[in-house]
Amino acid sequence: MKTYSIEFLEEVPKYVQIAKHMKKLIDVGKVKDGEKLPPIRKLADFLHVNNDTIVSAYKKLEQEGYAVQKIGSGTYAKKKDANRRIKREYTETFKKIMDKDSNEYIDFAGETSCDIFFPMYNFKEVINEVIDRDGVNALVYQETLGFEGLRRSISKYFWQGKVAPKDILIVTGAQQGIDIASKAIINVNDNVIVEKPTYNGALFVFKWRGANVFEVPIEDDGVNLEAFEKILKKNYIRCFYTMSYFQNPTGMSYSREKKLEILRFAEKYDFYIIEDDYLSELIFDENVSYESFKSLDKNDRVIYIKSFSKIFLPGIRLGYMIVPKKLKESIESSKVNTDISTSSLMQRALDLYIIKGYFREYIKKLKSIYKDRYMIMENYIKDILKDKVSFKSPGGGFNFYLKISDYVKINSDELFYKCKNEKILISPGVLFYRNNDDGLRYFRIGYSQTDDFKIKNGIEKINKILE
Amino acid sequence: MKTYSIEFLEEVPKYVQIAKHMKKLIDVGKVKDGEKLPPIRKLADFLHVNNDTIVSAYKKLEQEGYAVQKIGSGTYAKKKDANRRIKREYTETFKKIMDKDSNEYIDFAGETSCDIFFPMYNFKEVINEVIDRDGVNALVYQETLGFEGLRRSISKYFWQGKVAPKDILIVTGAQQGIDIASKAIINVNDNVIVEKPTYNGALFVFKWRGANVFEVPIEDDGVNLEAFEKILKKNYIRCFYTMSYFQNPTGMSYSREKKLEILRFAEKYDFYIIEDDYLSELIFDENVSYESFKSLDKNDRVIYIKSFSKIFLPGIRLGYMIVPKKLKESIESSKVNTDISTSSLMQRALDLYIIKGYFREYIKKLKSIYKDRYMIMENYIKDILKDKVSFKSPGGGFNFYLKISDYVKINSDELFYKCKNEKILISPGVLFYRNNDDGLRYFRIGYSQTDDFKIKNGIEKINKILE
Repeated sequence: MKTYSIEFLEEVPKYVQIAKHMKKLIDVGKVKDGEKLPPIRKLADFLHVNNDTIVSAYKKLEQEGYAVQKIGSGTYAKKKDANRRIKREYTETFKKIMDKDSNEYIDFAGETSCDIFFPMYNFKEVINEVIDRDGVNALVYQETLGFEGLRRSISKYFWQGKVAPKDILIVTGAQQGIDIASKAIINVNDNVIVEKPTYNGALFVFKWRGANVFEVPIEDDGVNLEAFEKILKKNYIRCFYTMSYFQNPTGMSYSREKKLEILRFAEKYDFYIIEDDYLSELIFDENVSYESFKSLDKNDRVIYIKSFSKIFLPGIRLGYMIVPKKLKESIESSKVNTDISTSSLMQRALDLYIIKGYFREYIKKLKSIYKDRYMIMENYIKDILKDKVSFKSPGGGFNFYLKISDYVKINSDELFYKCKNEKILISPGVLFYRNNDDGLRYFRIGYSQTDDFKIKNGIEKINKILE
Repeated sequence: MKTYSIEFLEEVPKYVQIAKHMKKLIDVGKVKDGEKLPPIRKLADFLHVNNDTIVSAYKKLEQEGYAVQKIGSGTYAKKKDANRRIKREYTETFKKIMDKDSNEYIDFAGETSCDIFFPMYNFKEVINEVIDRDGVNALVYQETLGFEGLRRSISKYFWQGKVAPKDILIVTGAQQGIDIASKAIINVNDNVIVEKPTYNGALFVFKWRGANVFEVPIEDDGVNLEAFEKILKKNYIRCFYTMSYFQNPTGMSYSREKKLEILRFAEKYDFYIIEDDYLSELIFDENVSYESFKSLDKNDRVIYIKSFSKIFLPGIRLGYMIVPKKLKESIESSKVNTDISTSSLMQRALDLYIIKGYFREYIKKLKSIYKDRYMIMENYIKDILKDKVSFKSPGGGFNFYLKISDYVKINSDELFYKCKNEKILISPGVLFYRNNDDGLRYFRIGYSQTDDFKIKNGIEKINKILE
C-alpha cells in the first residue's frame, strides 16, 4: 500500500490528487498494466478519506484511460494502447491527404470515388433548377425522414418500388447510418457480432455504445456459420453487422446460401442484421450477381444502409437507410437526437440528378474506368509482388486484401511505417481487428485515388520494402 | 416462484421464451413495476436451465425496456414510462407540422427561424459563384474540421480573430455538437450536470451515453451556485451543459458573476463546460450584454457550440464548435466516427454569404422583425392570460416560459392535449426535466413560426382552456 501514500495539498480536491498520483505510478510502471488497484475501502482507510473520494478518483482514472472497472471484481490499471500510435499516424496521414489533396502521396488507402470524372455542369444545372423550383423551401424544410422526392426516387430507381418511401430514412452517409442504428438498438453490454476482420469505423461505434463485440471469421463466401451459430446459442445477440459485397477490408462477397442461412438465424435467434451495402455498384466479375440481404429478407430483419458518398461524391454527404417497421420509431428518434435532419438542398439536387438519368450515366462511366484500374492493380500485384503476398480476387470494389507470405520477415505495422517514409499510404491489418495483433500479417491497398503510373510505382516500392 | 414456470417449446431458444413470458407478466401486472425479479441462479434452478439462459433472458427484457439492472443488486421489472405517450404525441405533432408546413396549426413550439424573410436571390448568387470558383472540389473535398475558408470567416467575423480557425470544427448543428462532445468526453456512469429544466435533446444524448445526470435548479441569473458546488464536492463531474443566453426552456440568461464563478469551479474541480450558445443574436433588452462563457474562459475549459440552423436557416444544417486544445484529437475522432465530415458545398456557400456581408444584413433584418413579435407576444400574454400564469421576461430569444398559477386547476400535460385538439402546439414542461413530473406546472410558447394574428388567436384559446 505504501506506493499509494500522498501528502495532500489544501487547495486541490483530494480525488484529483489521488488520481494524479496514480497516473504517475502507472506511467512509470510502479503499478503494472492490468494490476488490480486497491479495494476502495482499503485505500480510503489508508489515506484517511471517504470511500466516495476513492470512487471519484477511480472514475477519473477510468475516464482518462488509465483504469478499467470490472463489475463485481474491482478496478484495474491500464497502460495506454500500443497500437494507438499506428492508428493515430494512419488517421493523421489520411487526413493530411484529404485536407490538402496532396499529390506527393500515393494514396492506396482512399475508400471513396475520385473526382476528376464528375460532370460538374450537370450538377450546376440541377442545383439551379431546384433553387428556382423550390425557392427558400429548399433551405428550410426539415423532414426527419428526408426530402420526400428523394425517398420516392430511391424507391423507384433503386428498388423498383419494392421498398416504400416511408420506410426510407435519409442520412449523411453510411457512418451516420451505423451510428443511428446503434443508438436505436444497442445498449451498454448488449452483444453484437461482427465479421473478422471488419470496418474500423463500425467497431468504433459499437465500442462507444458499450457493446460486447463477438467476431466471426470470414471465409471466401461469408462468415463461418458454425462459429456464428455457436455464439448465437450461448448469447442473446442484438445485431450482426455485415458488408455483403466487397467486404471491407477483405473484399469478400457472400454466397446466396450464406445470406439465406443468416437470415434464418436472425429469425430464430431474434436479432437484426445491419447490412452496409458498401460498393455493390462495382461488380466486375460476371459470375457475381447482386442480391442484398435486404432483398432476400422476408421477416423485416435487415437494417439496410447505403452511402452515396463512397461511389458518387464524398463531399455531398448523403446516404439512406431502409428501416424495419418495428424499429421505425426508435430509429427516427435516434436521427432527430443525432442531428435533427439532413441538409435539404443537397437532397433535392441529388433527387433531380437521379430523375434526369445523370446518376445512372455517371455510375456507368465510373464503372468502366474503375474496372480498368482494378485489372491493372491486380496484374501489378501478381507480376511485381509475386509470391511475397497471397490474395483472393474480390471481383469488384476498390480494394485488395493481401496476406504477407510466411517467409517474408516483416509485419504490416512495420510495412506501414516504411511505406509512409516513401510517401505511400497503405492500410495495415491492425486497423480491422478487435484484437489488433490478429492483423499483423495483412494489409489492404486500393486503387480509387490513383492511376496506372501511381499503382505501378507504389507497388514497386512496396516490393522493395518486402524484400 | 410459481408465476415464472413455463412449458418450453422445442423450436424457440429458451431465453426467448422466458423473456416473452416475463413481458406478459409485467404487462398484465402479475409482476409489478419496480418489483425485483428472481435472482439468476434461483430462477435457473427452478426452470432447469443454465444461468446463462437467464442472463440472456434478462438482457433481452432490459433491451426491450421491461427491466432495469442495478449493479450489485439485481434486475427489476419496469412498466413502460407513462410520460412516453405525451412525448410521442408531441414529437408526432411537431413532425407533422415540419413535414407538411401545415398552416392549420398554430405552432408555438417552433424553435427555428421563419423562412419568409430570406432573400433567396443572394443565396443563389453565392452558390453559383462557389460552383464556378471551386468546381468539383466543392463536392469532393472532405476536411474533418470543415472547409478552411468558413473556419477563417467564423474566426474573423464572429470572434475578431480571438479564436484560431484550427480550433474550430464545423458540425451539422447544435444537436450534433452535443452528440460529438458527449462521445468524446462522457463514458458510461460518468457524471454530468445540467440545468433544471433543460433542453430535452441534450438530456436524450446524455442518457444515450449512459451518464449519471445531476440537475441544478435555474434562478433568474443562472443556476444556483450552492447546489452546484455541493454536487461538485461529492462527485467527480465530467461536464456541465449550459445555454448561456435565453436558456431553453426558461429564457433565462446568466449574469457575468455566475459565469465567472462557474469557470472557477470548472478549473478547481476539473470539468468541462459545454456551452450551447442558443440565440444570443436575439438580445432585445438593452441591459443585456453579450459575453459567452467561451469569451471569458482563460483555462480552455469551454466546449462552445453554435448552430446556424436556429437563427439562419434550419434546412442548411450547419453549425460549429470551438474545441479546447486538450480535447481536439478526441473530438475530431468523434466527428469522423459520427459522420466523417460535413457537407462541403453548403459550407462554401455559407462562407461566401458571410464574406459578402449578406449574413449580417439578414440577421439585422430578422432581429427587428422578431423584436416586434416578441413584444406582441409578451403583451398578449399579459393582457389575455393575466394572472393565470406568471413569467419573467427573457429580454430576447424566441420563447416565454409560463408557470401556471396555483389556483388554475389544470396541469400542462392536460393543457397540451387540449391545445392539440384546438390545433395549437405548445411545449409542456414535462419535456424538460429528468423527472418529468417536475414540469407539470410549466409550459413554453414561442413566436417564431407565427404572426400577430396567430399569436392573439392561440393565446385566446389557451386562455379559454385555462379558465
